[in-house]
Amino acid sequence: MNASVKVNGDRLLGRLENFAGIGATPAGGVNRQALSPEDRLARAKLAQLAADRGFAVFQDSMANLFIRREGKSAGRPPFLIGSHLDSQPMGGRYDGALGTLSAFEVLESLDDADIQTPVALEVVAWTNEEGSRFSPGAMGSMAFANRAIPAEWHHARSPDGKLLQDELTATLIALPQAAMRPLGIPVSGYLELHIEQGPSLERENIPIGVVHGIQGTRWLEVVITGQTAHAGTTQLSFRRDPLVAATEAMQTLYGSIMPNDEQARLTIGRISVEPASINAIPGKVSFSVDLRHPNAPELARLEELVRTVCQEKASVLGCEATVRRTFDMPPAQFSPTLLAAVEHAVTRLGVSSKPMLSGAFHDALFLARVTEAAMIFVPCRDGLSHNEAEYVKPEHSVLGAQVLLESTLAALGMS
Amino acid sequence: MNASVKVNGDRLLGRLENFAGIGATPAGGVNRQALSPEDRLARAKLAQLAADRGFAVFQDSMANLFIRREGKSAGRPPFLIGSHLDSQPMGGRYDGALGTLSAFEVLESLDDADIQTPVALEVVAWTNEEGSRFSPGAMGSMAFANRAIPAEWHHARSPDGKLLQDELTATLIALPQAAMRPLGIPVSGYLELHIEQGPSLERENIPIGVVHGIQGTRWLEVVITGQTAHAGTTQLSFRRDPLVAATEAMQTLYGSIMPNDEQARLTIGRISVEPASINAIPGKVSFSVDLRHPNAPELARLEELVRTVCQEKASVLGCEATVRRTFDMPPAQFSPTLLAAVEHAVTRLGVSSKPMLSGAFHDALFLARVTEAAMIFVPCRDGLSHNEAEYVKPEHSVLGAQVLLESTLAALGMS
Repeated sequence: MNASVKVNGDRLLGRLENFAGIGATPAGGVNRQALSPEDRLARAKLAQLAADRGFAVFQDSMANLFIRREGKSAGRPPFLIGSHLDSQPMGGRYDGALGTLSAFEVLESLDDADIQTPVALEVVAWTNEEGSRFSPGAMGSMAFANRAIPAEWHHARSPDGKLLQDELTATLIALPQAAMRPLGIPVSGYLELHIEQGPSLERENIPIGVVHGIQGTRWLEVVITGQTAHAGTTQLSFRRDPLVAATEAMQTLYGSIMPNDEQARLTIGRISVEPASINAIPGKVSFSVDLRHPNAPELARLEELVRTVCQEKASVLGCEATVRRTFDMPPAQFSPTLLAAVEHAVTRLGVSSKPMLSGAFHDALFLARVTEAAMIFVPCRDGLSHNEAEYVKPEHSVLGAQVLLESTLAALGMS
Repeated sequence: MNASVKVNGDRLLGRLENFAGIGATPAGGVNRQALSPEDRLARAKLAQLAADRGFAVFQDSMANLFIRREGKSAGRPPFLIGSHLDSQPMGGRYDGALGTLSAFEVLESLDDADIQTPVALEVVAWTNEEGSRFSPGAMGSMAFANRAIPAEWHHARSPDGKLLQDELTATLIALPQAAMRPLGIPVSGYLELHIEQGPSLERENIPIGVVHGIQGTRWLEVVITGQTAHAGTTQLSFRRDPLVAATEAMQTLYGSIMPNDEQARLTIGRISVEPASINAIPGKVSFSVDLRHPNAPELARLEELVRTVCQEKASVLGCEATVRRTFDMPPAQFSPTLLAAVEHAVTRLGVSSKPMLSGAFHDALFLARVTEAAMIFVPCRDGLSHNEAEYVKPEHSVLGAQVLLESTLAALGMS
């Protein structure tokens, strides 16, 4: 019945260009880290656009920003669409901004077409999704889902020495026109449009990904200790070289985890040795392990495998391995109801799509713990993200916004 | 005919203790880096001991220090015995000092016994063997052998910003009682006593190593480049992970080079990745390769093997490897005549010994290019060196000095 509602593509692309100017880097990327002056400027701009439209603006104690267009029933929980406005220090223009500005475009398009939704529709920009200025990432959505800010976050400091607490306060008072609301209000659902941040849609030439869930992630820190010794004088039988043990363990893991299971991911992103001297056998090797899998028990099994393999390979060479878990994010399954709404929208639009999992975290991961949630992906060039060269074709940005619009209407029972 | 000449063990041990106090570290080691105030103090002390005995003292433009006891024929080239007095920043008491002070003990013992040698016998303390304050190491003996100081050394700077040129000058003028002599005078031979800096003598319970040569060494820098990408979103078939290629290459090399040839040494002492983020597939891996072998063509073959294996493993994974040689020290074979003199001494003394190769460089490597040269090793505890815990049993220090004395007499045709 709303087949004729179309997002305004030119307006959306203009906004993307406009927001890319806030924290613009010389190489065409964006440096708009969470709660920075640039982030505050982007929030203020969005709030001004909302005020120009007569939409209400709210923020909570985590500085999550909400823009509300009322629906028929003011009393029922709103439906949320959005993403984040903060970026990596050398980030791109689309990661977060595309989802947030497309959500605002949905609000404006509905307003232009004078279409009333059964419940209020709210655009949300979550605080500090990236986690690069204050750790951890996804602070805003996590606190929203938990209805609490963990006490230790208040002591979090940015690399430039600022306290999270102080930066939150400064950001909130910089937007006095936004009314304060409690942290973690009831909502009736959440849809997020985001760039894929991986190459699969582009390589398969599919413009829309229907995201069924987010892989679980575990980070492990492996330390193997042996005995440092002189490179020239020490015979093989006297060596206890932890780097030999580490490479054997890594080879065993590389050769089994991903080749045996296409849903599994294994990445060793950091490795260092001590004393790191060209002519000394290392005494200690440390490396990180990033494990991902959509299935929680399988993820636990992979962690156990890493532990066993490292300890066995170390032991054979007279070394010792310790494996410490430093991060644990369980997998999330998105809402079948909302995924059906996205499929419905894609079918109506007649565009190709594929079901997929997200390998990266998103705010939707935390929303999924408290409401129906799902995500929509569009391709980005070469799968590049967290990179100034990040790029999304204009037609994919506009199509993503249109799918978000139609999925929202379907989720609200309006199509 | 000089069977009765014995070194004075107590005097030698007292000297070792005494010199260990110059640059002593709280943990019992020594920080007496080349051309530092501590190094100058040690030189001055040795020069004073020489003056007390009436021995002549000389230095050359590289601040190599010579102490001369005249022989029957003043005109023929002297025979040199010695080592170095400089240490690593956190070094031990014996590396260098044992050889230098034992050589001085040989001079004193011969003087005490009133034994005249056919040619002059000189103790030498070579400048900057360690190479830790100014690079490269073995500067003194290298310049002596080449009879020239490479122009680029003059611009060498210490970590505290001092120019080698200035530190050389300051060291030379701090010892005005030493007469200047040309760099690289003709000599008739060179014998050096040193600690093994490896565990083999201690483990086999053999007090003397007769050192037949020094392994050749090549240092390679391997860089493998692939494509950095997101740890969670990137499927196996899209990955070009240079760390996978590097570990495959390292495993192949670890599994063949040393297991197939007990004279070969392979050490990977440094490895680093970029961007070194837990959740990013590395885009670039760099690692060092230290290869050693006593046989020059075999060393060249091993370098070629590293090159081929790295390039093959990289290529299979869509990565690219470059292998650059950063250092090349050809193997040295010591003088059969001098080795026979050492064997003769060991037999006379009735102590057990074994022929061995040195895996570490020594000043003798450079002397071997211009004269007959050889080395004698004594065991050190746990093979530890370049470490404050470096330790040599007193009886091994004294035995080493006695073997040096008797080998010198044998080399001079006096026993």
